[in-house]
Amino acid sequence: MQKVLLLGSTGSIGQSALNCIQRFSQRFKICALAAGSNCARLIDQIERFSPEAVYFADGNGLEVIKNRYGQRLKIFEGPDGLESLVNSIPCDIMINALVGAVGLRPTVAALKQKRRVALANKESLVIGGDYIRLLLSQGYGELIPVDSEHSAILQCLNGSSHSSIESIILTASGGPFRNLPDGQFSAITPDQALKHPTWAMGKKITIDSATLMNKGFELIEAHHLFNLSYDFLRVWVHPQSIIHSLVEFHDGAILAQLGLPDMELPIQYALSFPERYPMHGKRLSLPEIRSLDFAEPDMDKFPCLKTCIDAGKTGGTAPAAVNAANEIAVEAFLSGKIKFTDIAGITAYALRNHKPVPADSLEVIELADREIRKNILDSYLSESTR
Amino acid sequence: MQKVLLLGSTGSIGQSALNCIQRFSQRFKICALAAGSNCARLIDQIERFSPEAVYFADGNGLEVIKNRYGQRLKIFEGPDGLESLVNSIPCDIMINALVGAVGLRPTVAALKQKRRVALANKESLVIGGDYIRLLLSQGYGELIPVDSEHSAILQCLNGSSHSSIESIILTASGGPFRNLPDGQFSAITPDQALKHPTWAMGKKITIDSATLMNKGFELIEAHHLFNLSYDFLRVWVHPQSIIHSLVEFHDGAILAQLGLPDMELPIQYALSFPERYPMHGKRLSLPEIRSLDFAEPDMDKFPCLKTCIDAGKTGGTAPAAVNAANEIAVEAFLSGKIKFTDIAGITAYALRNHKPVPADSLEVIELADREIRKNILDSYLSESTR
Repeated sequence: MQKVLLLGSTGSIGQSALNCIQRFSQRFKICALAAGSNCARLIDQIERFSPEAVYFADGNGLEVIKNRYGQRLKIFEGPDGLESLVNSIPCDIMINALVGAVGLRPTVAALKQKRRVALANKESLVIGGDYIRLLLSQGYGELIPVDSEHSAILQCLNGSSHSSIESIILTASGGPFRNLPDGQFSAITPDQALKHPTWAMGKKITIDSATLMNKGFELIEAHHLFNLSYDFLRVWVHPQSIIHSLVEFHDGAILAQLGLPDMELPIQYALSFPERYPMHGKRLSLPEIRSLDFAEPDMDKFPCLKTCIDAGKTGGTAPAAVNAANEIAVEAFLSGKIKFTDIAGITAYALRNHKPVPADSLEVIELADREIRKNILDSYLSESTR
Repeated sequence: MQKVLLLGSTGSIGQSALNCIQRFSQRFKICALAAGSNCARLIDQIERFSPEAVYFADGNGLEVIKNRYGQRLKIFEGPDGLESLVNSIPCDIMINALVGAVGLRPTVAALKQKRRVALANKESLVIGGDYIRLLLSQGYGELIPVDSEHSAILQCLNGSSHSSIESIILTASGGPFRNLPDGQFSAITPDQALKHPTWAMGKKITIDSATLMNKGFELIEAHHLFNLSYDFLRVWVHPQSIIHSLVEFHDGAILAQLGLPDMELPIQYALSFPERYPMHGKRLSLPEIRSLDFAEPDMDKFPCLKTCIDAGKTGGTAPAAVNAANEIAVEAFLSGKIKFTDIAGITAYALRNHKPVPADSLEVIELADREIRKNILDSYLSESTR
């Protein structure tokens, strides 16, 4: 029986992970859950999965949880609560489905405890990739991607030697604005941007998919996960999201992983890797879908993609700066403070103005992150209205 | 340095194999060549690759070869010549690129010598699959497919456990008559049937692609190569021939192998397996191709596919009977004696009238083969004009 610690249990990935664990209740047991703000859902999950410990971020909900479970469960809270949870509750696998830079410390803590980390938190690698690779190279833990794209790549590689890889190609749905004329981007509303054509996901990542920032982050993740320079990483737009990514080998052969858009498969694969466990459900039929389309991404319409590649190539704390700026920008866009096109403006501005240093410790990364968050919005807005 | 014995060296696959061996002349050396009728090309190949031995089938050409190389090379000839060649010339890998049932005996001989057989000769498995699986299960030799479809499957499997496979899907271009209305099939001329939309191949296999008989044979091969019942083998029509085949696993994930239509890749992979050697050349770009299409095969328009599946399910000598009938029918069609639709008629007729027996020896298989060839055309024609 493998013990699973799940961070971000009430989100979209977290809930899929719990479905998966419930299906394999003879192999996996939840030892701890961590959630941010959905108190009712966390309570429901506590009842269903009887963890030893929980973390909850929101102050009001926390009191409810404490009153109800204070006697039976270890309850973690506060800014260091996630890290304490990971350090005190033993597990075999930690699923990190947190959203945002807050996911980095728990990833590092779990790796240092030599756990398998099933990573859905993109920011861990986007901002902490250099440091995490250092830990992995020193024999700390194991990192298995949960993103459908990186899971696809892992499945295509299936133990192939690194020297036989020529390139890795991530597919991108292109988001809801793939065919929108250039001039209409500044008028995009949050409601329009929250309608993703193929995947049902949380708000932050749905906006990141609409700007293609998400794909840029995934390139940075792929760079770290598969140890490949940016010159050998590519993006193909593929609106149907059926081919989840591809690996090109040095003999010209390409392997691709395909499936219906459903996160339960990559989550389950991260748990079962390198084996595969059975999963029932609807199967992909290409004759039913009839046609798969592909195009090069349009870097002019989607400058966030270019900003990410530039940040990745620059290295050090540059991706952390872009990520922090993007988190602030997406929040501001969703609350109606800035236009859709300002997201690209702010992130590019952050990269231009950030002086990167090597990202070789948590402190350095978090300092860069904090400094950007503090004043990026104000300084961008004051500069752009000047 | 690995010694390679190449059967069918002057055909399309044989020539590609030689290109590949020339590129890796520090890893592979040709020890023997066998060809059927193209004397000038064989002489050219002898000059380029300096084999120790050759086999040549055609009587006139054989005299030329003997006069020219009788002193320097071992020369094999006659009905048992191919088998003798395989039994007397040591090699590490035998590439069997012969066309037709004549390929079975050399495959069996090489396996009995515990060689790796890179198999492009479909008939070995179509008619001798049961017997070959018996040999392999007894530890004789190793069989690596060269067909682009089966090579794709091998690449997708890459060591995955058999129990995790849910189904195998072969793609079919659909041939030149995919969109031809039903009523026009009987008027198809050999010239029309010899124009394959995506692959440049020999005449026999091009006709088999036009009738989809080729895909039916490939299902029988896949059944034997990957030990899967016919209920778990499928065909998807895919006109662009870019996805060469797919494997569906029991968690719903599908892996596919993609590439430009070029036989050098699967030939090289059969030589390098399980490694991959580099190969230069044009790379596949899906954005350049733009769209991949898929459809279910139309069993009414292409009854040969159904006949093959039925023959495969019947087992024993039934596939040998269908194969022999098809060889006779294709020959008769190419020489203008029968209509295109008679190919399907003759093969279905052969299956209906054949009394299958277990295919557990070469003698039994060859007896079935001979009996069908002897009178299938006459008895079909006399029955159909009755």
